[in-house]
Amino acid sequence: MEKRSVGVVETCTVDLARDESEYVELDSGELFGPITVAYETYGVLNAERTNAILLCHALSGDAHAAGYHGEAESKPGWWEEAVGPGKAFDTDRYFLICSNVIGGCMGTTGPASEDPATGKPYGIRFPVVTIGDMVKVQKKLLDYLDIPGLLAVAGGSMGGMQALEWTLRYPDFVRCAVVIASTSRLSPQSIAFDAVGRSAIISDPDWKTGDYYGGTLPSRGLSIARMIGHITYLSEQSMERKFGRRLQSSEDYAYDFKTEFQVESYLDHQGAKFVERFDANSYLYVTKAMDYFDVAEVYGDGSLEKAIERVKARMLLLSFSSDWLFPPEQSRKIVDALIFHKKDVSYFNIRSSYGHDAFLLETETESGIIRRFLDATFNNLGRKGGNCR
Amino acid sequence: MEKRSVGVVETCTVDLARDESEYVELDSGELFGPITVAYETYGVLNAERTNAILLCHALSGDAHAAGYHGEAESKPGWWEEAVGPGKAFDTDRYFLICSNVIGGCMGTTGPASEDPATGKPYGIRFPVVTIGDMVKVQKKLLDYLDIPGLLAVAGGSMGGMQALEWTLRYPDFVRCAVVIASTSRLSPQSIAFDAVGRSAIISDPDWKTGDYYGGTLPSRGLSIARMIGHITYLSEQSMERKFGRRLQSSEDYAYDFKTEFQVESYLDHQGAKFVERFDANSYLYVTKAMDYFDVAEVYGDGSLEKAIERVKARMLLLSFSSDWLFPPEQSRKIVDALIFHKKDVSYFNIRSSYGHDAFLLETETESGIIRRFLDATFNNLGRKGGNCR
Repeated sequence: MEKRSVGVVETCTVDLARDESEYVELDSGELFGPITVAYETYGVLNAERTNAILLCHALSGDAHAAGYHGEAESKPGWWEEAVGPGKAFDTDRYFLICSNVIGGCMGTTGPASEDPATGKPYGIRFPVVTIGDMVKVQKKLLDYLDIPGLLAVAGGSMGGMQALEWTLRYPDFVRCAVVIASTSRLSPQSIAFDAVGRSAIISDPDWKTGDYYGGTLPSRGLSIARMIGHITYLSEQSMERKFGRRLQSSEDYAYDFKTEFQVESYLDHQGAKFVERFDANSYLYVTKAMDYFDVAEVYGDGSLEKAIERVKARMLLLSFSSDWLFPPEQSRKIVDALIFHKKDVSYFNIRSSYGHDAFLLETETESGIIRRFLDATFNNLGRKGGNCR
Repeated sequence: MEKRSVGVVETCTVDLARDESEYVELDSGELFGPITVAYETYGVLNAERTNAILLCHALSGDAHAAGYHGEAESKPGWWEEAVGPGKAFDTDRYFLICSNVIGGCMGTTGPASEDPATGKPYGIRFPVVTIGDMVKVQKKLLDYLDIPGLLAVAGGSMGGMQALEWTLRYPDFVRCAVVIASTSRLSPQSIAFDAVGRSAIISDPDWKTGDYYGGTLPSRGLSIARMIGHITYLSEQSMERKFGRRLQSSEDYAYDFKTEFQVESYLDHQGAKFVERFDANSYLYVTKAMDYFDVAEVYGDGSLEKAIERVKARMLLLSFSSDWLFPPEQSRKIVDALIFHKKDVSYFNIRSSYGHDAFLLETETESGIIRRFLDATFNNLGRKGGNCR
């Protein structure tokens, strides 16, 4: 199959929650606004408005899910392999929307945005947001776009958390959800990795309590945080294959403290690339939102089973055998709770050595599964009553 | 069984390699000296000098393996549970020696020591050392103490690497070796964790290319490095039990960036404690020595089997089921190579949820195994000819 890239139909920002009556009530209790949302769309909304799919990005992603912004752009959007004509999220058939999360740094209001009250960037005066808050803002965007309901919401990692959150917060709005390499809540080990990353940023003297805009950026801290993250995205097996104990440039040890092993060089490179495109404060906010994510607490008084009872969407969960950040067991817990309530659920644990990164790499396997799932949902529209089943 | 603490017989430093003819030839090729070694001994050397056991410490350990330095000391040595009268390393029976490694910061010459050529601390002008170099210096110490051979060499984690190195570098000097929670070489994942820790130190502006002595210490970087380390010492399971997702001081989220989850607080505390007692440059040197460790490369042209053929000592290997830093498979590879050569080897994979930390926590299980192994070796002395079997 020839794979064509999708044309990006819209790349825009929209101002939502412009006056106080429209402000979003955050999970912290704070009323917050105004909010600008950056989003892209691909494909065409049908006349019945029944083919809209929301794509949710992961920690370091953005609204640019697929295609190229003109010829100058050398790299396509983050889910190019899955989004386009004839691909899993078939733009010949579906209308796709992807927006940058609140708290992010790719166009949607976040800590680097100007606080209208002061005329200066918010910094850490920006309110701490949750995955639930990200979803509330996405809902506002869909209302603005006049989308009466979603055929599907889909995402991997933190994107999967948002997809799951959607099925609980707005159960009547979503026909189906695709939750990939994700979890219903972070384990203490994952919180620990996030926390050390945040510590690295906060202890960087250039961080200056978050007020570094216009000056030197806390790139050292952010780079360390990203390096820690990347270790958790790969599996031991993929590291062994990709780098082994090979040295960067010589046969023999250099006996100094320069970057020497290939795996060191890879992490250095990932850290250096990341600081060019990501805001350190956003890293604090987005990881904190992930750490807070716990649907059992919010929707089930501590019980995942109780929380999951709210789900009305058809559910597809995918996990990857070598993912140790959000291991298959964590997906299976959600699946078990769905089965307990006799919900419509499909689950695949895909054998892969790529670790957590697999959700962006095992696209061929994922695509077949996702496409069949979406098409079945779409083809059944109207045949059954009710919203979802 | 009542557990008594051992009296520390000797706490001393000795100057070795005092003139150039005695200098140690490091694996880097550099002739290095003078070298001061800090060591402790427990128990009494018998008249035949056949009951000496060398204990090797892990990354952040030191020469103080057991007992108390007078009543002022609130915490005993690092292997108190295993070293003492009637314990695994029975001080009523054996003469135990433990020394701080070269490159360390607890009395043995390291980067914080004064370079006699300049009168200033070495900093990173100190030569990069290897696990092999640590063992060479230990051998010099034993020669100085007039120990003609070791009944045993034992250690966990980096201490286990030294024990393994002893059996390869000085095969005729060691009757048996106890290698706990260790490996014949670090995986790229372990190297990656070390490398990010070093990056955190090196990118701390207070590090000043290693010349921070007498000024502000690079405590932020060292603390981050230690926090990363601690994540790898615990298992997901032990973190779940020890901390879960519990908050430090409140029922509700604080919606700020202060330390909030108990696991965050634990890591903060470990980081803060560590910087009070450990030198950041030593952290660079000691982790680099671990990263370089690869006995297959040094002794077997890349083949572990070939390297292991040199072993003459009786071998005891212990691993822990939930250790993901140096997982059981890595011990098993050494065991397989020993079995291939029909060496005298015992191996136990101890079921434990404590992760890598288990080697300091599962003392009761370890102790029974170690004691029987040591006693069998000691009781057989003289019955068989040759050094080891």
